[in-house]
Amino acid sequence: MQQGSINVQTENIFPIIKKFLYSDHEIFLRELVSNAVDATQKLKTLVSLSELKGNTENLKVDVILDKAKKTITIRDNGIGMTGEEVEKYINQIAFSGAEEFVEKYKDSDKKNAIIGHFGLGFYSAFMVAKEVEIISKSQRPNSTPVKWTCDGSPNYTMEETTKKTKGTDVVLHIADDSLEFLEESRLQGILNKYCKFLPVPIKFGTNERTEKEKDAEGKVVEGGKEEKIVEDNIINITDPAWTKAPADLTDADYKSFYRELYPMTFEEPMFHIHLNVDFPFNLTGILYFPKLKNNFEMQKNKISLYSNQVFITDNVENIVPEFLTMLHGVIDSPDIPLNVSRSYLQEDANVKKISSHITKKVADKLASMFKTDRADFEKKWDDVKIFVEFGMLTDAKFYEKAAKFYLVKSIDGKYYTQEEYLEKIKANQTDKEGKTVLLYANDAKEQYSFIETAKNRDYDVIIMDSPLTSHVISKIEQNGENISFARVDADTIDKLIEKEENLPSKLTEDEQKALEPVITEAIEKEKFTVQFESMSENDQPMIITQSEFMRRMKEQQAAGGGNMFGAMPEMYNLVVNSNHALIGEIVNEKDDTRKKELVSQVVDLAMLSQNMLKGEAMSKFIRRSIELIK
Amino acid sequence: MQQGSINVQTENIFPIIKKFLYSDHEIFLRELVSNAVDATQKLKTLVSLSELKGNTENLKVDVILDKAKKTITIRDNGIGMTGEEVEKYINQIAFSGAEEFVEKYKDSDKKNAIIGHFGLGFYSAFMVAKEVEIISKSQRPNSTPVKWTCDGSPNYTMEETTKKTKGTDVVLHIADDSLEFLEESRLQGILNKYCKFLPVPIKFGTNERTEKEKDAEGKVVEGGKEEKIVEDNIINITDPAWTKAPADLTDADYKSFYRELYPMTFEEPMFHIHLNVDFPFNLTGILYFPKLKNNFEMQKNKISLYSNQVFITDNVENIVPEFLTMLHGVIDSPDIPLNVSRSYLQEDANVKKISSHITKKVADKLASMFKTDRADFEKKWDDVKIFVEFGMLTDAKFYEKAAKFYLVKSIDGKYYTQEEYLEKIKANQTDKEGKTVLLYANDAKEQYSFIETAKNRDYDVIIMDSPLTSHVISKIEQNGENISFARVDADTIDKLIEKEENLPSKLTEDEQKALEPVITEAIEKEKFTVQFESMSENDQPMIITQSEFMRRMKEQQAAGGGNMFGAMPEMYNLVVNSNHALIGEIVNEKDDTRKKELVSQVVDLAMLSQNMLKGEAMSKFIRRSIELIK
Repeated sequence: MQQGSINVQTENIFPIIKKFLYSDHEIFLRELVSNAVDATQKLKTLVSLSELKGNTENLKVDVILDKAKKTITIRDNGIGMTGEEVEKYINQIAFSGAEEFVEKYKDSDKKNAIIGHFGLGFYSAFMVAKEVEIISKSQRPNSTPVKWTCDGSPNYTMEETTKKTKGTDVVLHIADDSLEFLEESRLQGILNKYCKFLPVPIKFGTNERTEKEKDAEGKVVEGGKEEKIVEDNIINITDPAWTKAPADLTDADYKSFYRELYPMTFEEPMFHIHLNVDFPFNLTGILYFPKLKNNFEMQKNKISLYSNQVFITDNVENIVPEFLTMLHGVIDSPDIPLNVSRSYLQEDANVKKISSHITKKVADKLASMFKTDRADFEKKWDDVKIFVEFGMLTDAKFYEKAAKFYLVKSIDGKYYTQEEYLEKIKANQTDKEGKTVLLYANDAKEQYSFIETAKNRDYDVIIMDSPLTSHVISKIEQNGENISFARVDADTIDKLIEKEENLPSKLTEDEQKALEPVITEAIEKEKFTVQFESMSENDQPMIITQSEFMRRMKEQQAAGGGNMFGAMPEMYNLVVNSNHALIGEIVNEKDDTRKKELVSQVVDLAMLSQNMLKGEAMSKFIRRSIELIK
Repeated sequence: MQQGSINVQTENIFPIIKKFLYSDHEIFLRELVSNAVDATQKLKTLVSLSELKGNTENLKVDVILDKAKKTITIRDNGIGMTGEEVEKYINQIAFSGAEEFVEKYKDSDKKNAIIGHFGLGFYSAFMVAKEVEIISKSQRPNSTPVKWTCDGSPNYTMEETTKKTKGTDVVLHIADDSLEFLEESRLQGILNKYCKFLPVPIKFGTNERTEKEKDAEGKVVEGGKEEKIVEDNIINITDPAWTKAPADLTDADYKSFYRELYPMTFEEPMFHIHLNVDFPFNLTGILYFPKLKNNFEMQKNKISLYSNQVFITDNVENIVPEFLTMLHGVIDSPDIPLNVSRSYLQEDANVKKISSHITKKVADKLASMFKTDRADFEKKWDDVKIFVEFGMLTDAKFYEKAAKFYLVKSIDGKYYTQEEYLEKIKANQTDKEGKTVLLYANDAKEQYSFIETAKNRDYDVIIMDSPLTSHVISKIEQNGENISFARVDADTIDKLIEKEENLPSKLTEDEQKALEPVITEAIEKEKFTVQFESMSENDQPMIITQSEFMRRMKEQQAAGGGNMFGAMPEMYNLVVNSNHALIGEIVNEKDDTRKKELVSQVVDLAMLSQNMLKGEAMSKFIRRSIELIK
């Protein structure tokens, strides 16, 4: 039996790391700036532990673009590297100095967290550079500066050099196929995307030389030599709001951070949730509830994922439960497992925990808002409702918590919890079987006349107008006892809430039988069922209703969630009020033509009440109406 | 100066390859089955070149699940490996045997293409297995079978073994955190997703033993020993339609392949495009035009990307131009550059070429359908239109081609090219300035009375009902000369197409002045401008119009594409027909209350024509209508 060790051959894996590990070439800048930040954080840690002396006052990273020389330099004044350290961290791929360092100093200071997880980031430089130089001087006493050069083959050279300041310069000689990265605006854009909230100041500047200096260009300009940087700006905020304690932040601070995140959004968020978890994973962040606009889709996926203040991705699918993907804000967690290119999530049990933790925090926040300032909560409710409903439908634990602050809105604008509302309507809106009926409308304008009829009975009507209504009310019915929802136009009002008493009918059965064929002639027979009801004489002469059950099945089908009823044709009832004066007049009308005309007119008016009169029928109705008043 | 070579340390990079390279652990099966397929293809190539003798008749791959032993075995009867080859291909990570092989035999036979690009796929086994065995016997004469074992550390053992059949078994001992992969349905699902169209038969079976055999379980069961496979099915189609020549396929073949791709879709596609490109990139595929349903979004992203018949992703963003993402089907290209996990695209110039090639093919197909069978093309047009419009708006080259087959549909159901239609309406619908006006409606029902009015003038009306209408007509106007589109309700018909003659007005100016305040009282003043027009006495007494320009700006805003007009409030004209008999009657009505009532009624009827009567106003109108006829 032969034993051995699997061997990675550098000349084969190097091109893969260089070219294929990252899908976006722009990532090189994130990786190199992150490394530079790490170098400053390492220095800070060692100085704080008195293992090293050094100046940690003005730690910073410079990104210097030199168009003429076609270079980008990433310069830090951090810990620097000796020749031995370059050998260890650069020449040995994936030694992952960062991990070793974290392991050693893990208990010393959380704030100085280390960004790199894999130690591969540096090599991403070769995605855009044909040659990379590292010029570094260690902070350790009596260090000799070194210069390392590599042209993208596995071969490198290393030599002593001169460098006045301590720290590291990484100089990229940009390859011909990557010249886009020599555009100032491109670099500015990348820095803004990935480095906006890094913990030490990042300066971005361009390096331009005078004509005289250009003449002398032949000489090698070593890193560390004083250079003229004509433009110079700090592109980041080193202490973004989410890294601070909630107690140290005012409402204005949260709003101003929102504007930092979304400079193009003018609307202010309604409120926020500050996340701060230590166990079993590390997670901080701020989630904002935006005011929802019509175009839901465009508002989705605005939450950014950071890892130790480095931007990773806008795709937080799986981390944030789906019903909260319409929130905005930032989540920062070094513990979210990413694949090597940090672009997406590993399948991981921790991720599920994070998701359910966020759900819990959101439910708690809403519950506490409801408790502490109900008036304010009610003001926000219309905008929050859709999140809450989505959550109630998809997450049982969230449902349990939300049931206590889920509000229904009466047609008169007042809000009630479910419990309060049932208390309010119980006496009047409980039917003879003991079932309490919640009357609702999904459109106060469209269902105006039905709402009026309900009000005439002193019934209350609530507005349920979200796209999830039919699912939500089915859920609430399942969880409640002896309650049911009915849309105001699902039947005549006296059938929706059946009481003991019944009105007598003015029309005899014979009169009804005689009238029915005249009515049937005026409607589409397949679509309508004609029925006579002895309603109040103040109700409409005719109304059109649609069964609650069938309509809800159809709505649920439309909202996604197929069922066998969804595909059935639309069916309606044409209810004739046998007590209405006009119906009496029509019965007694001797002139057949006039009788038909009157029936058509009353049928059309019922259709209008349901917004069902269209096209030629509408045109005919208008002409008939003009004739009738001429 | 020191020189050296960068060194990859296996013990550090191995965990990365194992755990972090792929985001989806299920990928291991795709990689191992692809490798097994490669092994059969290599054998085929070498036998066809007479470099090797061997049986290439019954090449196949077995995937065998053994729940009791907690193993998954991937077995092929392909080329096999000698001990030296295991050393070379397995122990040296990223040697990428596939690439070496392709390089050597690249001209011999395109069909036997090699799947693996990176040679890293094998190691994905360690994402789910705590131990992996390779038991292989090479097809080369006098080969000794070898068994390689590795527990996920870089250390392996290799020894001689016994194996009767030639080929390779890869045995995965599934790790405790990956037991989900021992579920038959899970494996079936993964195979169905990734391996459904691989070029050699893939059999999937479970391995169950009798009680007696279970008793003897202590003994090592070597791969290759005859095992009892109780269930056994071939899960793939080895020659999917896209790999064949279009000449060899009937329409029924294309439809049956569509059902293979989308077994849950009952609707048949309208037609297809078979892609087949050799240069400058290799690409085959079949794109289907589905019948569009209401829910566009759900139909998007149904195109699957394959690489040599291995499924890669459903996300073809960037490969297929956006306006074609609603198509269904398959694209297969070994030349599409993917990152190492094959999950997404590299930035690449070739990708842009592929996209514009697909655009061209689609335009050509549509042009040829129009030419060869216009009746059939017209039948499909309503469903194809939205693709074409989207393409015309986003791709100048596509616009040029599409302008010749873009059809307009008259209200009577006839279709015309733009050229034909202008010819048809020119004589009657050209105004006094020489501009030809195309009248359109976006909803034949809603705009019924306006369409009737146009027909009374012998004008033709076309239906433009797509969500892109306002953008498309603006584009067509820009590209045409002296043509303009106007919706039928944008003004009175005689203003929409102004001719020389003018009707005299029956109402005097004084009568108009006297009536105007009565009308103004019945409407919302800020929303309507009242104007008197001397229209035909057969036209409506009042109509409501909205300027074409303003409405179009608003529509374009809503469809995405902001403009300063989009945010302005809705404004309408209330046009009073000064020649209508009823208006005359109202002017002469002495009873002020009755006059007001009549004006309200006529205004409401005009509002109804535009579906603008809502809520309380509708309820009032219905009550008034009942009173007026009682």
